[in-house]
Amino acid sequence: MIYGAIEAGGTKFVCAVSDEKFDIKERVSIPTTTPQETLEQVFDFFDQYDLSAIGIGSFGPIDVNTDSSTYGYVTTTPKTAWKNYDFLGAIKERYAIPVGWTTDVNAAALGELRKGAALGLSSCVYLTVGTGIGGGAVVNGELLTGYGHPEMGHMMVRLHPDETFAGFCPYHGNCLEGIAAGPAIEKRYGKKGHELADEQHVWEMEAYYLAQALMNYTLVLSPERIVLGGGVMKQKQLFSLVRQEFEKLMAGYIELPPLEEYIAGPALGDNAGITGSLLLAAEQVK
Amino acid sequence: MIYGAIEAGGTKFVCAVSDEKFDIKERVSIPTTTPQETLEQVFDFFDQYDLSAIGIGSFGPIDVNTDSSTYGYVTTTPKTAWKNYDFLGAIKERYAIPVGWTTDVNAAALGELRKGAALGLSSCVYLTVGTGIGGGAVVNGELLTGYGHPEMGHMMVRLHPDETFAGFCPYHGNCLEGIAAGPAIEKRYGKKGHELADEQHVWEMEAYYLAQALMNYTLVLSPERIVLGGGVMKQKQLFSLVRQEFEKLMAGYIELPPLEEYIAGPALGDNAGITGSLLLAAEQVK
Repeated sequence: MIYGAIEAGGTKFVCAVSDEKFDIKERVSIPTTTPQETLEQVFDFFDQYDLSAIGIGSFGPIDVNTDSSTYGYVTTTPKTAWKNYDFLGAIKERYAIPVGWTTDVNAAALGELRKGAALGLSSCVYLTVGTGIGGGAVVNGELLTGYGHPEMGHMMVRLHPDETFAGFCPYHGNCLEGIAAGPAIEKRYGKKGHELADEQHVWEMEAYYLAQALMNYTLVLSPERIVLGGGVMKQKQLFSLVRQEFEKLMAGYIELPPLEEYIAGPALGDNAGITGSLLLAAEQVK
Repeated sequence: MIYGAIEAGGTKFVCAVSDEKFDIKERVSIPTTTPQETLEQVFDFFDQYDLSAIGIGSFGPIDVNTDSSTYGYVTTTPKTAWKNYDFLGAIKERYAIPVGWTTDVNAAALGELRKGAALGLSSCVYLTVGTGIGGGAVVNGELLTGYGHPEMGHMMVRLHPDETFAGFCPYHGNCLEGIAAGPAIEKRYGKKGHELADEQHVWEMEAYYLAQALMNYTLVLSPERIVLGGGVMKQKQLFSLVRQEFEKLMAGYIELPPLEEYIAGPALGDNAGITGSLLLAAEQVK
């Protein structure tokens, strides 16, 4: 069997095909413009293969509620051309095969659990900290969905005493994403994160926010591991700062694995999402 | 088959036996003193029956990690006599039958999902707001466990601008439990909650905290329903205040069921935990 996968991001779509061992045979990167333009190139790529199933890990918010009349749609995204667009429907119309559908970060969580940093475990959280903050989770070996999908990046956290920035989230102002995603760092300091690499106070504030979020995820989901990815986490000094702050906040209340294992970087790097989407494809035909 | 159940609380143990339809045939309430004293009475009660399985919903924190050497123990509880006590082991030593083991609030979540306020759904959160704040969850139809169990009551929330109380949580000071559980209300105002029923500002502050917590649970777990129980929630005016504040905080970011349904009171009242524990017993022999 040949599996197809789409990691649909706000900037680019990555499409890949793999064999049953999930070894990627070919991949392509397509700019995210309008649904029509972008999907035309997706179809050009997949049309070359006799696919058995497709897995999609999409930017969101998306409708994952199978009881909903807009199941499979991209919903309230600020990317106008994709707002209320029946993404899953368009793929299903083109290919009469099973199609798995979840968020980009849920797909990444599945990828890291089955093939990466959370290998052998049955639960994990994957959090991406980049132009936005989004989280996915696997619980009891299955992707977390309920009425909808997680939107962990929009959690409210306590503001740092030195905070001067009002936050950029159009919905919540200074929610976690609004004050700790990449654009918040840039807007607060007038420079991009990688230009601030040596500014200790920048990363202490960032760690202050991320550690609170990780504490909350831990208390709600009790995952076996939390994997932190995304552009902001390329600042590797952040990991130890986040672990220190997390340890202080938790105050020994619950038993946890050693924090060097518990709060980890992605083992699949930028391939977490596409790998998870291939795994999701395989789940549709198992 | 006859099922036995223990709802083990910090103040009292409720034990019950039921038939396969979960109709309770007999129940007994036993004060929580020392493990030896309390379990002696538990044994006296259960010894009368030919049980097929037992379900335990226990106060905590407890060890629910089957890979752990202290699986089945009550762990870091402030109730000294029960600290590091092998509760599950004691029950299993007495009765050579399958025994299910989870938290009191996880049991209540299961009860409300299968027989109560979240009937017909496959996910819910049950939050008790009383002398402490604790939450349990069902995800994809199964009890949520991971490395451990949820400890949702200890989440950090933003302090109300009028807050004067430092919080009473011995671990986290002013975490949610520290500033919004019953004792916080009593310590802040010098009166018990039911004596403050007409003081609007008391319940607005309470709603401010609970709504933040509910927002965070929603963004992480995406449950189909949240059931609020416990002594503090007997102040029924709280429900509409929590819904209003929650709606304001969420700012329409994600699609949710009507809030009158989404944020609900328990349908099983004080029977949620014992009912869930009976259901858990049945799961051990299905």
